[in-house]
Amino acid sequence: MKDWATLTTVEEMEAVTNSLLENGKKVGADTWQQRVKNQTPHCGFGEAGTCCRICSMGPCRITPKSPRGICGCDVHGIVARNYLRFTVGGTAAHSDHGREIMHTLHQTSPDGNYQIKDPEKLIRIAKEWGVETEGKDIYDLAHEMAEVGLMEYGIPFGTQKFAKRPPQHTQDLWDAAGITPRAIDREVATAMHMTHMGCSSLAEALIRQSLRAGLSDGWGGSMMGTEFSDVMFGTPKPVDTTANIGVMEKDMVNIIIHGHDPSLSEMVVHYAQDPEMIALAKSFGAKGINVAGVCCTSNEVAMRHGIPMAGNFLNQENVVLTGACEAIVVDIQCIFPALGPLSKCFHTKFITTSPIARMPDSEFIQFDVESAGEKAKAIVKMAIENYQNRNWDLVNIPAQKQNARVGYSVEAIKKVLDTVANSQVDEFGTTKPLIECIHSGVLRGAAAFVGCNNPKVRQDAAHIGLMKKLLENDVIIIVSGCSAQAAAKAGLMDPEKAKEYCGAGLKRVCELANIPPVLHMGSCVDISRMMVLASDIAKDWGINISQIPLVGCAPEWMSEKAVSIGNYVVATGIETFLGVDPYSKGSSEVTELLQGEHGINDWVEAKFVVDTDIDSLGDKMLECIEAKRAALGI
Amino acid sequence: MKDWATLTTVEEMEAVTNSLLENGKKVGADTWQQRVKNQTPHCGFGEAGTCCRICSMGPCRITPKSPRGICGCDVHGIVARNYLRFTVGGTAAHSDHGREIMHTLHQTSPDGNYQIKDPEKLIRIAKEWGVETEGKDIYDLAHEMAEVGLMEYGIPFGTQKFAKRPPQHTQDLWDAAGITPRAIDREVATAMHMTHMGCSSLAEALIRQSLRAGLSDGWGGSMMGTEFSDVMFGTPKPVDTTANIGVMEKDMVNIIIHGHDPSLSEMVVHYAQDPEMIALAKSFGAKGINVAGVCCTSNEVAMRHGIPMAGNFLNQENVVLTGACEAIVVDIQCIFPALGPLSKCFHTKFITTSPIARMPDSEFIQFDVESAGEKAKAIVKMAIENYQNRNWDLVNIPAQKQNARVGYSVEAIKKVLDTVANSQVDEFGTTKPLIECIHSGVLRGAAAFVGCNNPKVRQDAAHIGLMKKLLENDVIIIVSGCSAQAAAKAGLMDPEKAKEYCGAGLKRVCELANIPPVLHMGSCVDISRMMVLASDIAKDWGINISQIPLVGCAPEWMSEKAVSIGNYVVATGIETFLGVDPYSKGSSEVTELLQGEHGINDWVEAKFVVDTDIDSLGDKMLECIEAKRAALGI
Repeated sequence: MKDWATLTTVEEMEAVTNSLLENGKKVGADTWQQRVKNQTPHCGFGEAGTCCRICSMGPCRITPKSPRGICGCDVHGIVARNYLRFTVGGTAAHSDHGREIMHTLHQTSPDGNYQIKDPEKLIRIAKEWGVETEGKDIYDLAHEMAEVGLMEYGIPFGTQKFAKRPPQHTQDLWDAAGITPRAIDREVATAMHMTHMGCSSLAEALIRQSLRAGLSDGWGGSMMGTEFSDVMFGTPKPVDTTANIGVMEKDMVNIIIHGHDPSLSEMVVHYAQDPEMIALAKSFGAKGINVAGVCCTSNEVAMRHGIPMAGNFLNQENVVLTGACEAIVVDIQCIFPALGPLSKCFHTKFITTSPIARMPDSEFIQFDVESAGEKAKAIVKMAIENYQNRNWDLVNIPAQKQNARVGYSVEAIKKVLDTVANSQVDEFGTTKPLIECIHSGVLRGAAAFVGCNNPKVRQDAAHIGLMKKLLENDVIIIVSGCSAQAAAKAGLMDPEKAKEYCGAGLKRVCELANIPPVLHMGSCVDISRMMVLASDIAKDWGINISQIPLVGCAPEWMSEKAVSIGNYVVATGIETFLGVDPYSKGSSEVTELLQGEHGINDWVEAKFVVDTDIDSLGDKMLECIEAKRAALGI
Repeated sequence: MKDWATLTTVEEMEAVTNSLLENGKKVGADTWQQRVKNQTPHCGFGEAGTCCRICSMGPCRITPKSPRGICGCDVHGIVARNYLRFTVGGTAAHSDHGREIMHTLHQTSPDGNYQIKDPEKLIRIAKEWGVETEGKDIYDLAHEMAEVGLMEYGIPFGTQKFAKRPPQHTQDLWDAAGITPRAIDREVATAMHMTHMGCSSLAEALIRQSLRAGLSDGWGGSMMGTEFSDVMFGTPKPVDTTANIGVMEKDMVNIIIHGHDPSLSEMVVHYAQDPEMIALAKSFGAKGINVAGVCCTSNEVAMRHGIPMAGNFLNQENVVLTGACEAIVVDIQCIFPALGPLSKCFHTKFITTSPIARMPDSEFIQFDVESAGEKAKAIVKMAIENYQNRNWDLVNIPAQKQNARVGYSVEAIKKVLDTVANSQVDEFGTTKPLIECIHSGVLRGAAAFVGCNNPKVRQDAAHIGLMKKLLENDVIIIVSGCSAQAAAKAGLMDPEKAKEYCGAGLKRVCELANIPPVLHMGSCVDISRMMVLASDIAKDWGINISQIPLVGCAPEWMSEKAVSIGNYVVATGIETFLGVDPYSKGSSEVTELLQGEHGINDWVEAKFVVDTDIDSLGDKMLECIEAKRAALGI
């Protein structure tokens, strides 16, 4: 066994959380730890997916004595319908994030709130989409691309433009399976229609649509979200930052940004650095303004500006519980409604900004492209003015923090690989040096860690535990979302420390390339970066994506987005390992389709592996990687 | 009390159903009557809307001891999210029907499977939409209009074209409330995003989106479904037909068509009248081919071809239980998965045709525009060849049947009104003669009956009971969907019989205009006809829609579509009366928003009235009509 002593353990993180919960008790704060107790045990029908509320004849529940709903739907139809609806909740949310990015792109201007920071990337995608670029003003091109991109949500004919990105073999599989995604919103609407009372009850058809909807997210809405965020806010490059609750500053105005869409957080970050605002903060007795992130917003601004990461999904209450949070500013997705009442127990301002995410007990400052600067400034000011309202008796910022290097976009990874390429024989800008490492066995393979926290799994323990296991076994890791923050909080993104805990091969690679063994690829929409990377590796290697010794893993997933993601990761040909069951265990047929040898595996050459025993899940991941190596004869 | 003796009573209908259930017992058939028993009592959390399965941390259930879900969402947020998702299941389904119609329109051709039967209507809508019509070939225009219409599902900017149809006052209300519908699919996706974990938990915002999504259905997808079905298949005119199980023919090949989209049923009807097919049927010993309908497909072909109506939603098993159903051919929505196993108990072929509605134990013959004729012919042939497989011992066709006059499109109603207009002083083609009747008190008002059956209400008893009550009180009735069939089965659409049971004023109107007192306006998408009619009345009268002595009623509703409909009917300004609660009673806040004086009523001048005591519901409808009269001073 390795000695992980220089990393932060889950036990240490829990000790810190406990001290914050004590803080909460002083003011009667309700927290998720208590609500989990109140809500346990969960409804067995709901957990198995065997309850149906799709029409008002019910609800119906399947038992041995009542094997069919009132309409006659059997358990497989009910579970599969629920699974598809769960999927498209995620598809819609993820892709709508991308839509907002496209609307922002549509309103970029040289002197407005949003500019084009990566014109090269814009031109590259325009050429890929067949949009004329010659002689065009970059903003005219941006607006034209925004309109083309927005049509990806609603175009009545044809399929997603980015669905032409993966290797031809993948595209052929999708066509043969009938899952090449059409307009994104149409896939959501189709799914809602198929699952309407008296429509589809054939599990196979419903699971097929789940994959198609997922693909419209991963190779559609999410991918646009990622690509055009890069165009506007810059394509991430490696940057050093810090992570964990200790990034909050006792003597500064702490603004926590939380949610997903960088359109908001970029502006808040900008105005928090404004000398006028800093002077204002000082006039209130603070040493300055400290912006830190939670959830995927944190990933976005960490990757582009080195903004510190205060925590992941299940830490969102912790930042308020420090008593030192002047404002928690949120946009969309994964925001606890609990922040409303919780913030009332402290001086914290809970500021909601999106019409998509309206919450009780919040101050709603509607954010839009035109007034983004003005609103962001107002929010920063509100936080500063709130500094004086702190109850210093309640301030408790635990000193837990790690260094982390983040910002590994595909472009950044290729630049890193260029540094280790042999300039005599290799082409630059490819994934070939990575392929060589895997081919030679220096690395056994790669694992993509994604997804949330879920109280059904000990917080971060599965993320960190599995990562450690894989690192020891020379498996390089790419991460996104709350999984990324779990790694960062533990110290697994510290290039100095983390390499010490890897197998010899991986350690050597980290040293040569000067990278941490866990590469931060971004927020949850940025799993599209992982898809592009897998696609590029397959093309550079001349094999199918499903042949790469690469696995996906969401050990603590929680949201519908995670299931949408799971569907597109699997449909892309990457075996995906889950530590929480997607409400599907009630149907043997759905379980067989998702997890069996001859379900979706026959269509897309990959499947789900669900195991709530996290250690066993890790063994299966390693087995899968080794099996793929063996099949390649390497 | 009136003597209703010449009508068919609910008791008589139940007696017939019981004889069919006896038939089923002989072959071990499972039926909804038994499944309702198995599924009762229903889950109280589900019925109240207080269970949340929107992320995998749960499911969570709200109780006094656990007032919030794990994320902190309170009961109002949970109920409202469930309500919005329920709504958009309906929005998506209804509007997708419209989309299929537009795709069919896109492929019309003079010598293809589908033609333009009402070119005038196409030109009229083209002018309304600002599409140039001059000098254009009607098929070129049709294809152009199809493309414009399909964009209504996905256009990135702007709002629905048909949302310009209602009076300016209504449009102003929608704009002020922020509920003017954008692209249809976008409203569905927005709703799914808003209800994603960690997005909206503010009930008011969620209910607002429910109205907007509903409007995108009623004044968007559904309305296109109706209007362009008329363009292709003809705008309905009054036609006589028959209704109830007795329309099935003992000595003929019985083909039951069931579902919603006329694209399929029109073709089946066409080929069932083909001399070659009739000859084939005779060669198998049958006297001919009898096509009859169930659910909204039945409404579509009854209105255009006088095809008899075998029954409504909860009769769908009855047609198979007669033992004389050679094939039940379905497309989308409201189709019991139970038909699969049930048909296996008899010789019946259960034929599914749409990728949207795939079901186990069915023969899937995928229907599409190109092969529609060929496939329809194959289906008719399959039914004919199946005639020889009848088990004559099981054949039981109860002799229960009524005459019905159907086909009252808005255009047809205005034509009827022209016949009673005073040619000296009135303009033609308006609703003014109807307005005069209401203004003078000859009619007290009008009621729109819509929606399904639901085993929570004694089948058809609420539809028929409430209609009788209103007719006696001189309230003229417009109907659609399964409510229409309930009326037809009872005899309330027989112009000779039904007028005898009306109040004196309504009876006189029926005699003068030669109409039944219950006017069949079509299938459930055709509730858009009712919206147009209400809008025209308001304009002709010079008042707001909400001022018309007009109520909506869905006493036995069951599907998500019905809730989408309810939302747009209310949002159009028509008070809507429900006999089944939309899983919303668990939240006082949602109940107040939907049913209170100062919820949606403040935004759109109408609200829901929910009362499971049907008699009381009827009293409230009459009170509402009288209150509107009083407010108008008439």
